[in-house]
Amino acid sequence: MQQMDGTADTPELEQLYKDFEANNMTPLWTQLGDLMPLQPSPAAIPFVWRWKVLHDIARRAGHLVPVGRGGERRAIALANPGLPGTAYATPTLWAAIQWLEGHETAPEHRHSQNAFRFVVEGEGVWTVVNGDPVRMSRGDFLLTPGWNFHGHHNETDQPMAWIDGLDIPLSHYMDVGFFEFGSERVTDYATPDISRSERLWAYPGLRPLSSLDPLVSSPIPAYRWEYTDRALAEQLLLEDEGHPATVEQGHAAVRFSNPTTGGDVMPTIRAEFHRLRAGAATQTRHEVGSSVWQVFEGSGTAVLGDVEHKLEKGDLFVVPSWVPWSLHANGEQFDLFRFSDAPVMERLHFNRTYIPGENK
Amino acid sequence: MQQMDGTADTPELEQLYKDFEANNMTPLWTQLGDLMPLQPSPAAIPFVWRWKVLHDIARRAGHLVPVGRGGERRAIALANPGLPGTAYATPTLWAAIQWLEGHETAPEHRHSQNAFRFVVEGEGVWTVVNGDPVRMSRGDFLLTPGWNFHGHHNETDQPMAWIDGLDIPLSHYMDVGFFEFGSERVTDYATPDISRSERLWAYPGLRPLSSLDPLVSSPIPAYRWEYTDRALAEQLLLEDEGHPATVEQGHAAVRFSNPTTGGDVMPTIRAEFHRLRAGAATQTRHEVGSSVWQVFEGSGTAVLGDVEHKLEKGDLFVVPSWVPWSLHANGEQFDLFRFSDAPVMERLHFNRTYIPGENK
Amino acid sequence: MQQMDGTADTPELEQLYKDFEANNMTPLWTQLGDLMPLQPSPAAIPFVWRWKVLHDIARRAGHLVPVGRGGERRAIALANPGLPGTAYATPTLWAAIQWLEGHETAPEHRHSQNAFRFVVEGEGVWTVVNGDPVRMSRGDFLLTPGWNFHGHHNETDQPMAWIDGLDIPLSHYMDVGFFEFGSERVTDYATPDISRSERLWAYPGLRPLSSLDPLVSSPIPAYRWEYTDRALAEQLLLEDEGHPATVEQGHAAVRFSNPTTGGDVMPTIRAEFHRLRAGAATQTRHEVGSSVWQVFEGSGTAVLGDVEHKLEKGDLFVVPSWVPWSLHANGEQFDLFRFSDAPVMERLHFNRTYIPGENK
Amino acid sequence: MQQMDGTADTPELEQLYKDFEANNMTPLWTQLGDLMPLQPSPAAIPFVWRWKVLHDIARRAGHLVPVGRGGERRAIALANPGLPGTAYATPTLWAAIQWLEGHETAPEHRHSQNAFRFVVEGEGVWTVVNGDPVRMSRGDFLLTPGWNFHGHHNETDQPMAWIDGLDIPLSHYMDVGFFEFGSERVTDYATPDISRSERLWAYPGLRPLSSLDPLVSSPIPAYRWEYTDRALAEQLLLEDEGHPATVEQGHAAVRFSNPTTGGDVMPTIRAEFHRLRAGAATQTRHEVGSSVWQVFEGSGTAVLGDVEHKLEKGDLFVVPSWVPWSLHANGEQFDLFRFSDAPVMERLHFNRTYIPGENK
Repeated sequence: MQQMDGTADTPELEQLYKDFEANNMTPLWTQLGDLMPLQPSPAAIPFVWRWKVLHDIARRAGHLVPVGRGGERRAIALANPGLPGTAYATPTLWAAIQWLEGHETAPEHRHSQNAFRFVVEGEGVWTVVNGDPVRMSRGDFLLTPGWNFHGHHNETDQPMAWIDGLDIPLSHYMDVGFFEFGSERVTDYATPDISRSERLWAYPGLRPLSSLDPLVSSPIPAYRWEYTDRALAEQLLLEDEGHPATVEQGHAAVRFSNPTTGGDVMPTIRAEFHRLRAGAATQTRHEVGSSVWQVFEGSGTAVLGDVEHKLEKGDLFVVPSWVPWSLHANGEQFDLFRFSDAPVMERLHFNRTYIPGENK
Repeated sequence: MQQMDGTADTPELEQLYKDFEANNMTPLWTQLGDLMPLQPSPAAIPFVWRWKVLHDIARRAGHLVPVGRGGERRAIALANPGLPGTAYATPTLWAAIQWLEGHETAPEHRHSQNAFRFVVEGEGVWTVVNGDPVRMSRGDFLLTPGWNFHGHHNETDQPMAWIDGLDIPLSHYMDVGFFEFGSERVTDYATPDISRSERLWAYPGLRPLSSLDPLVSSPIPAYRWEYTDRALAEQLLLEDEGHPATVEQGHAAVRFSNPTTGGDVMPTIRAEFHRLRAGAATQTRHEVGSSVWQVFEGSGTAVLGDVEHKLEKGDLFVVPSWVPWSLHANGEQFDLFRFSDAPVMERLHFNRTYIPGENK
Repeated sequence: MQQMDGTADTPELEQLYKDFEANNMTPLWTQLGDLMPLQPSPAAIPFVWRWKVLHDIARRAGHLVPVGRGGERRAIALANPGLPGTAYATPTLWAAIQWLEGHETAPEHRHSQNAFRFVVEGEGVWTVVNGDPVRMSRGDFLLTPGWNFHGHHNETDQPMAWIDGLDIPLSHYMDVGFFEFGSERVTDYATPDISRSERLWAYPGLRPLSSLDPLVSSPIPAYRWEYTDRALAEQLLLEDEGHPATVEQGHAAVRFSNPTTGGDVMPTIRAEFHRLRAGAATQTRHEVGSSVWQVFEGSGTAVLGDVEHKLEKGDLFVVPSWVPWSLHANGEQFDLFRFSDAPVMERLHFNRTYIPGENK
Repeated sequence: MQQMDGTADTPELEQLYKDFEANNMTPLWTQLGDLMPLQPSPAAIPFVWRWKVLHDIARRAGHLVPVGRGGERRAIALANPGLPGTAYATPTLWAAIQWLEGHETAPEHRHSQNAFRFVVEGEGVWTVVNGDPVRMSRGDFLLTPGWNFHGHHNETDQPMAWIDGLDIPLSHYMDVGFFEFGSERVTDYATPDISRSERLWAYPGLRPLSSLDPLVSSPIPAYRWEYTDRALAEQLLLEDEGHPATVEQGHAAVRFSNPTTGGDVMPTIRAEFHRLRAGAATQTRHEVGSSVWQVFEGSGTAVLGDVEHKLEKGDLFVVPSWVPWSLHANGEQFDLFRFSDAPVMERLHFNRTYIPGENK
């Protein structure tokens, strides 16, 4: 008789395993440790992509690869070395640099996948969401939730690059995605400073009476840097004045939220902005679920697992599930944008956090 | 035998009714029509209070009645003539004009009752909410939800008046109120333009990571006129541009909301701001639940039941449950603040609306 | 100048108070203590009604007062002596004994008010809810949530009495009620053991795929004594076996719940069944909100405020808001049915409980 | 210049693609059609496993492979031929036949993954969940939600087989799982007919007052066949009597639900039981998300995609995302158990259903 650990072998056992295979059956006992590890054991690895490299390569793609119907977007994904053969940052999250030359248009389409843009530098592009042109500027966080038509156009002579974030890996894995082509051009080339949806929705605590039901995703198409910056600055000032406001000493942070529910901006993606005071550091955290960070301003270090990474403006890094991470500002203020799959973890009740030194 | 309508009479019946009374019993059949009418039949009546009168009388109270511990507030309630012996605007809502002389302080206390202030004119007073000074200025809507300590002080030489709204009638009826005295002076006489809670919370769609749970009441202590005005103006502009934004033609409106839930600012009170374009009118509505309105700017008319009332700046009126109402702007833009018990109706599932001419 | 406590007086003050009254204004400072007491100070008093008395008087009403269209129900309400002139058990709750002679029919109607029946003894009546006949038997708890048509008919030669509970006082106070007459006879005189809605809904943890949305009120029309009794008995047995199951030592209790939400059976009324082991007692509790209890079986005592009341089968008593209460079984098991306005308190966030000796 | 469809080629382009690869970057435009298809395009295929084959092979494994610590369970998974190299029925769902010889024990452990058992035939095994022994009998649906310790033991001389369902594939993909070994034997070898948790929880609409908060997963450890069968039978009888009760003509169905929320039994898995009257058929449905079915009794056919499959008792089949399916009873009543990842789809708002002939 075979032991469950695999020792011993007989012709009957050999035949049994052959019959498993012939009948599309797989025993659990030979796979258990891999399938159900003692703690999350991700194939994805912590990794850093340098903005200078990404930007340089994207610039070259801008010269060599046209944008248009079919390929749809000149977006180049961050491919986690632990997930070979994929274009995934983590098993759930897609992160890409998108590049648009001066006066180019990326055509309109829509898809089930939830998407956002974050602008680490530059300006001059408008994203047209369901016909509503939304200006993209440095520091802005912009939404195109699932099944909203969207296209981009560059109004200037200069190229512009930004970050796209989507739930493509999870959507693809679970076979949930629909896709529909729209106009080959954007449907409105106007370039207003502020979109119609912002004019309707982007006020503190005010809701239009014409739309009172809770919405699955946030109706605010652009979270402007002006407010994010001010909110973070005020948290640090309040801390200086002796009032509770920050997450931990010297660490201010805001979460982008859906004003109709108070929850995350989209059902699968959480987005936050973090600011560390010069000299400040976060605690080390293990979290179920994965995230992608981009340095927005300043420099500092991230400790991912056991490895310390020096980070400059624009650098991106991923934190796979349960890999311990901490951030450290050095001589200057350190600003970072983060997105993660935390809403998935929370909605499915898989979320768990462990901070060494605190109670589990 | 007696009929259920009360005709006929016998000694046995007389004895029965005596025994009901002697044993603290009351038959339903003699009261049914009153207790369970075919539709809401409020004792409260539609009524208008003139701001000029309220203000003049409050001014005299300012000279004659001191404010201080015991009486607590120089607030004079709108007493619905249909509810004699009470100080209630409606069975659920309290509305009062509060008056504070120059350099006066109304002492701190807290209570279960939910409260707000609305400022139709004036400035110079700060409400201190749990130690956080909140400036009160024209057009601002200010919260002191249940069990938050609060006091007021007037920083100037001039008196200031505003409107208080509370759920005192409902709380009193249901025996739910607790009250606690605090400092006889306010705990912080600072006069910042913007309170600490606004610095933490009053941004479009941003939440501090230090407070992520849903809150029963909104953490925004002041909804500033600047944003309310802009939101209403934009709705009308969007309507002009051909986009859906208003409640009905020429009628812009916002609801003050709790950014942690998207719902009402407090569990028992809804607050809204309405703007009618010159010449515009609302549909006639019957609604379960009662509300109080104050004209903020402009003039117009309200039709309450069958009666038309001309309204000027500052005038207040009540709409009892199910009394049909409509608003009409005349030659100028007509701005009104409204508060109501709608969250109570909705949470208890008694809400119902009927618009004659539409399907019930 | 007058003090806020009302001392001192001048002609100017007298005129001020006259002008208040003439202009439908009421100062807060003269009413504050009554309107906003330090803790709930209900007018309703704790009170006991004896089942023998209720039953005897109801029996006489059965002989003297016909039931039929107009009066609708031969129901006699418990009128709290602290609420003179009303037919209310508490400010929010109505409790009545209803009596139906043999072969009588109480006609069909519907109303916004939520209603239930509880049967302390007897059988032979069916309540027809939206055309679905529901048998009423000893120990059963039966629902007719707001706006469901319902009538009753007695299939036997014998009279039957039961308890009606409704939110009439709250509905009347808030002006929310609609009422509609239906058939003068019940629409179905069938007398099945089990109603159609029970056949569809009354299973542990099973929902019909034909109705998957959450429902405002429970779709189970009758909670049968068989299950209630078994659930309570098992809790005490589990306690005997050393497992957590009871609320406190010797005190088993179940809440009737809406299987589509897990919450209360109706938006305004909570219903529970409590069983105390012989010799057991509850802690003393102060609770915001009011409740009505009926002894179902056994005898014991209730301490309401400072007064101890001996209780027999069928006796009813009320506990107004914040009045401390405890129950004590003596030589035998003590079974009690309870209903309360707790869902109102919780939905409006006025709920609070204090157990002396525990932390507030 | 290269076209987005990939035609044309230059040395610069070649170098660009090399640099993509060297820098862990992947262009979207070459993968778009695969990553974001027009509609879900699952790799998993519709497939049928025959119970006779599964049972025979599992019986042989019972003789050849011991059960015990390390391998933990003698469970053999249904491996979808479209997902080679995995042991997955679908990308999200695991389904296995588990076999326990007479008097064997499968040791206790717990894991984040949510699990259930369904018993198509046999009896004699108890699953011990957190120390509470739960009898397993034909037709029962049994829960072991995430992080509950559980083991199995066979009290009889005869082997027993049943179906395990888990969210292992999704949990593994998303890196969310924790695992902990417990006792090598079950902690309680008692063999009660009914578990303690059923005694506390398995009543229609009754909740113990000792546990009133909503629970993430259902506290009912076993949904007994007696109730499932009765609920389905009553739906068909009600249909016969002319009342709405079934999903569609001749098709009765119940969903197993969490009595504390009314929702699904676990956050990631939905479970239902379906009964088709002889001669009845379901509509054809496309659904986002995947499911696994097992025939419980009777025979019939399933049309999956374009292929018709004849089904006998115990046969299992999978329906990948968006593959159209319908069921057809032939000469006899057709009973099927189903589980699916629908709660995942709904919580992440990816759910969509299309019924040809109805509006999308």
